[in-house]
Amino acid sequence: MKPAVTVLALSGGVGGAKLALGLSRRVSSGELAVLVNTGDDFTHLGLRVCPDLDTVLYTLGGVVHPAQGWGRADESFGFMDELRRQGGPDWFLLGDRDLVLHVERTRRLAEGERLTQIMSDLASRFGVASRVLPMSDAPISTLLETDAGALEFQHYFVRLRAVPIVQRLHYAGASQARPPDEVLDLLRSRSLEAVILCPSNPYLSIDPILAVPGLRVALRAARVPIIAVSPLIGGRAVKGPTSKIMQELGIEATSVSIARHYSGLIDGLLIDETDDTRETREALEAMGIRVGVTPTLMKTLDDRERVAQRALDLASELATVSTHTRSAG
Amino acid sequence: MKPAVTVLALSGGVGGAKLALGLSRRVSSGELAVLVNTGDDFTHLGLRVCPDLDTVLYTLGGVVHPAQGWGRADESFGFMDELRRQGGPDWFLLGDRDLVLHVERTRRLAEGERLTQIMSDLASRFGVASRVLPMSDAPISTLLETDAGALEFQHYFVRLRAVPIVQRLHYAGASQARPPDEVLDLLRSRSLEAVILCPSNPYLSIDPILAVPGLRVALRAARVPIIAVSPLIGGRAVKGPTSKIMQELGIEATSVSIARHYSGLIDGLLIDETDDTRETREALEAMGIRVGVTPTLMKTLDDRERVAQRALDLASELATVSTHTRSAG
Repeated sequence: MKPAVTVLALSGGVGGAKLALGLSRRVSSGELAVLVNTGDDFTHLGLRVCPDLDTVLYTLGGVVHPAQGWGRADESFGFMDELRRQGGPDWFLLGDRDLVLHVERTRRLAEGERLTQIMSDLASRFGVASRVLPMSDAPISTLLETDAGALEFQHYFVRLRAVPIVQRLHYAGASQARPPDEVLDLLRSRSLEAVILCPSNPYLSIDPILAVPGLRVALRAARVPIIAVSPLIGGRAVKGPTSKIMQELGIEATSVSIARHYSGLIDGLLIDETDDTRETREALEAMGIRVGVTPTLMKTLDDRERVAQRALDLASELATVSTHTRSAG
Repeated sequence: MKPAVTVLALSGGVGGAKLALGLSRRVSSGELAVLVNTGDDFTHLGLRVCPDLDTVLYTLGGVVHPAQGWGRADESFGFMDELRRQGGPDWFLLGDRDLVLHVERTRRLAEGERLTQIMSDLASRFGVASRVLPMSDAPISTLLETDAGALEFQHYFVRLRAVPIVQRLHYAGASQARPPDEVLDLLRSRSLEAVILCPSNPYLSIDPILAVPGLRVALRAARVPIIAVSPLIGGRAVKGPTSKIMQELGIEATSVSIARHYSGLIDGLLIDETDDTRETREALEAMGIRVGVTPTLMKTLDDRERVAQRALDLASELATVSTHTRSAG
């Protein structure tokens, strides 16, 4: 029997996976579940590719490429070389080892298996004790309206290197989707103690998860502290186009904007010490959001564990407050 | 516009592909078409794998592994290593470069394209001027009834290394199939001068082709000499289980048995000099089959061209005879 989950993390790819790894090392084995964005998933060369799920899997499984933060550390590219030689599309890199997941997943999806079950089996193969859960078994596709036209996520992000100006985002298929039962069960469980929103891109990685009908309500109904870790450090994202997109959408790239974006959902926000100003604290407190501060840049494994612990501590503090409030109420 | 085909070869994998390469070098560029067995095709890991088609493609494209006779000369096995590590089925070897064909073919078949069209495009990618044609667009599966139960071809041949004793063969799906229009057009064309049955396994490689409804009749109706190259040398096959299967089916492994197997279809049989006995000649002549003799072992490219030329010469001799017969008739 699996241990009960105490912490649920919501995550996109690289940055989120780093915090998820930290969290997995600060709770007992098997007590972490990671709910992963699948809005980036796409069908490429007929194969179902789930970049964020695989990044989380490889990171937790200890096989991720350390400098890149995605893909395999020990990888070869015979397939890609040959695809290029034959004139096939070479803008999306697929390693030979990485291909095993895409081939296996495509086959099992075609046989009618649920993505949740497939990822659960793959996690076992990689010796990952944490649960790696897709936000939905049905496909949802993050679409970007940009100055270069409507784009699927990977075309925007990888093929066009996030250069087009984003005007609007939507999550195709979301309205017909629902969270997997495993996720809803977990949110109803008495064991759950905290929900952590990883420092992933709020628009591209966390919003698609929150767009799955019923999930936002289920998160609040769990009545455990929900903590977000800000993806910004001094108004800039460590990696990826978060601040660029905020600017394009006319939103100031600050911790306060992040808090406002998640308002009504989060109870606490962990920000970088660079962003710890009196104005920020006052604004967040006015929104009823408790502030935690730590250096949020995660270069080493120690960093990841420290940021994870700080987020868990903030949740604990809020749980105490909440218990008081509840008994008072 | 493509050159008109003058020679049609029927081929299985390794041995047949060697003669096909020889033939391609003894006719003008683009004048050879190879009609390839697809009874060995199977779906593995959700990918459509066509071993004989790919062997012919790689051989004619000059990228085949020279010692093996199948697969790529320059190949890596990252996918296979990882599949094995994850506990996946590792009995069928798939190289990283080789995978490009399987992935591409699977995708295009799923989109409703015909195998014939897909192989035509792949041949272009490999700079192959000859046409590489599947025997059928619909799947046909060679099934073997053996002492180890009913087996699909690759399970018999690769997984079980052709060890089980063969009792009976059939070609599932053949009755609903038909030759691709490209093949029928070619057989109706006035340009065609000869049909060559490559020294492939008659039961496992050539019979599936001949089992496609309408093909045998269309071959005869082409009214060009049909020459078989015997796969036996001194009662043994160079490679593969031809003589083993003949023994199991209670057939003596001789050139005469091969001739008898193809009787009613072939006009000439090219045999190895080892098998050139008076008895053999008399038996073949009694069946109305003209005999050609040459060392049929194809070790070098020169060997392949020489055997090819000898088969073409035998066809020419028969064409002359036939013309005489026709004018006399």
